[in-house]
Formats: sequence, C-alpha cells, structure tokens
Amino acid sequence: MPSFKLTYFDVRGYAEPARILFHLAGVAFEDKRITHESGDWEKMKDKTPFGQLPVLTVDGLDIPQSAAIIRYLANKFGYAGKTPEEKAWADAIVDQFKDFMNSFRQLIMAQRAGKSADEIAKISSDVAMPARDSFFKIIEDLLKKSKSGFLVGDGLTFADLVVVENITTLEKNKFFTASENPTIAALREKVYAVPAIKNWVATRPDTQF
Amino acid sequence: MPSFKLTYFDVRGYAEPARILFHLAGVAFEDKRITHESGDWEKMKDKTPFGQLPVLTVDGLDIPQSAAIIRYLANKFGYAGKTPEEKAWADAIVDQFKDFMNSFRQLIMAQRAGKSADEIAKISSDVAMPARDSFFKIIEDLLKKSKSGFLVGDGLTFADLVVVENITTLEKNKFFTASENPTIAALREKVYAVPAIKNWVATRPDTQF
Repeated sequence: MPSFKLTYFDVRGYAEPARILFHLAGVAFEDKRITHESGDWEKMKDKTPFGQLPVLTVDGLDIPQSAAIIRYLANKFGYAGKTPEEKAWADAIVDQFKDFMNSFRQLIMAQRAGKSADEIAKISSDVAMPARDSFFKIIEDLLKKSKSGFLVGDGLTFADLVVVENITTLEKNKFFTASENPTIAALREKVYAVPAIKNWVATRPDTQF
Repeated sequence: MPSFKLTYFDVRGYAEPARILFHLAGVAFEDKRITHESGDWEKMKDKTPFGQLPVLTVDGLDIPQSAAIIRYLANKFGYAGKTPEEKAWADAIVDQFKDFMNSFRQLIMAQRAGKSADEIAKISSDVAMPARDSFFKIIEDLLKKSKSGFLVGDGLTFADLVVVENITTLEKNKFFTASENPTIAALREKVYAVPAIKNWVATRPDTQF
C-alpha cells in the first residue's frame, strides 16, 4: 500500500466518508486535522491544489475535492459499486447530495453572516427545507426499491457513507429526525452496524459538523 | 455495444461533453432533445430518476446526473484518465467546475428572476466574477504545469471537455474573452482540433447555452 495522508479540518464534514473507508479497509493513514485556532490553515492554504480542504496525499501526490478523494479510495478498496452501471449510480447519488448541500448551505451561510431572523426564515422555507425534502425523497425512494437495503446494488458503497454521514450532521443540527424518516434512519443503522464502522463511530472525535 | 439514449434539453449545457464523447468514440447514440415549447418535459419529469435532465439510458437503465454520465462514458471509451490517480484528478477538476457553476449560476438566476440592476451588479461583483476568476486561475495554473497541454496526464480526458464546453458558453454570453485568457483558449483550440470533435463542433446545433 502507498502512504496516505488525509488533511482536513477537525470536523467530520466532507472528509468523514474517506476516513470511514480507511477504517473499513483496515488501511493505515495519517488523519491530519487542522484547527482554526492554530493558524495552520492560513499558512498552508496556498500550497493546496485548489486552496481548499480536504486533500488526500498519496505517496506525495496531492488529490483535492472530497468526492474525487472518496471515489478514488472507494475504487481502491472495493466500495465504488460492482459494475460500471453501479459505479455511475453511486456517483449520481453523491452528485445529487452535493447539489442538495449547495442549496442547503445558503442557510448556514446566512446564519454565519448574521442575517436577520426574517431573512434566515425566508432562506430556510424557500431554499433549504425544499432542497432537503426533495433529497430525502430521492433517497427514500431508492431505499424502498432496494433489495439489499443499501443505496446501490447488493452491498455498501461510498454513496451510503456520504448520505449516512450527512444525516448524522443534519440530526446534530436539528434538521433530521430519525422517527420521521425511518427508511433513511434504517440505512444509517445498517451502515453503522458494520463492525469496522461501528468501532470507528464509537471512538472517533465527536464534532458538531 | 449497448443501446444508448441521451435525453437533455435542446442546449449544449451539462450534456454536451457526453455528446462529444460519443462522437469521439464513434459510438452511435440517440441524441434526444426536449424543447420547452413541446411540453414534453412536464410530462416526463416525474419519470426521470431525480426529476432532472440529462439522463443517459443504457439498454433501458436510466442514469442521472451529468458528471456521473460523463464519467461513465469516459471510462467506457478511454477518456477518464490512464491511472487511478489521473482519474481522481479528472474528477477533482470536474467537481471544481461544478462548485464554480453553483456560485456563477446565482447570477443567471438573479437575471432570470428579474432582479434590479443593482442587485444583479452586486451578485456579479461579490459572487459570480470572483468564482469565475478563481476557477480560471486553477485551470491556467494546471495548464502551465502540463507537459501535454491537456489538463490531466498526457492525453484528452473528460475534464478537458467539461472545461472547454463551459468556456464556449461563457464566451457566447460575454463572460470569457480568448485574448485575455490565451492559456485556456489554447486548450480549447487543442481539443477542438481533434478530428472527430472538430467535425461535431462544426455541424452541431448552435445554441446560446
């Protein structure tokens, strides 16, 4: 195996599915976490390929963009889908997730920018909640048609990891309620029951995002 | 070869790199174009996997999401990158493009929503132009380091197609000027000089987007 270093902030966020893939495959990696307090990010930003994190470093080669990183590891470790068509479907679900997050983050940005309660309520009702609800419907419909209980084919793929980690973050921030979304909650239980994942989830740093 | 149908609106947009890949590989496909006037989209929307186009249909299996479709075809036809690391880099560039477009489209949405000239100017200067300029810088820096003149490795990948088609659309809408961006313009010349692409570009429907 090559040497792997995953550099990200000290949150689960966009990098957590990559961390889970390493634990699932039992492959050692450096889990490098940058804290805002350290000032390290300002120093290293211009040295990253796109001025962003996460970055995966494989034997010295930097790879940027979370979905590219996760897909790369999923292909290497056998969690990308079993056929070209399954791989395309896993990719499509991850892209749909990214589109949802691009709408949803407008709410987070408005909150961070200290916009008025009225403005935040409007972004929530006009943009963020409709985006969440239509994404949830897509995921629920896929799960209802699934014979395996996973999103693609008959086994775990990185698409399951991306969706499940996002659900955990939404729940921590009061945007997901397991009892109201039992189908999606069942996917998370199934994924978190995989022994290597269960062990990592029980011991990993507990972060809000 | 399986039977392929690509369904999209009557524009280049997010589907054009897929069309180019078919022409490049010399593989027959149905280039199904939905016009807004026909009312066909309203009728078929609920039957698509995610309520969106493009959709690629492969022997009856629908695959949604443009990047997933383009990557699937690129892998099938040999334009996804030659190594796992090249594939990850092509993916990363396409994801960076998508992030740029998610910012840039706020300008298009504001124009379509009939916002005031002041609001549009503010979105342009605060969001769309900075997003464009930082994306262009990433692409230029990659091209300056490239030995082949392509974005990834020593040959054409779907990342080149995605960037080049976007440049063509930005230019048609006065957001790209070849003389001001010679490095990116040179990539487009190189890609459009490939005989199968040259032929398609010369004969394809000429659309604004």
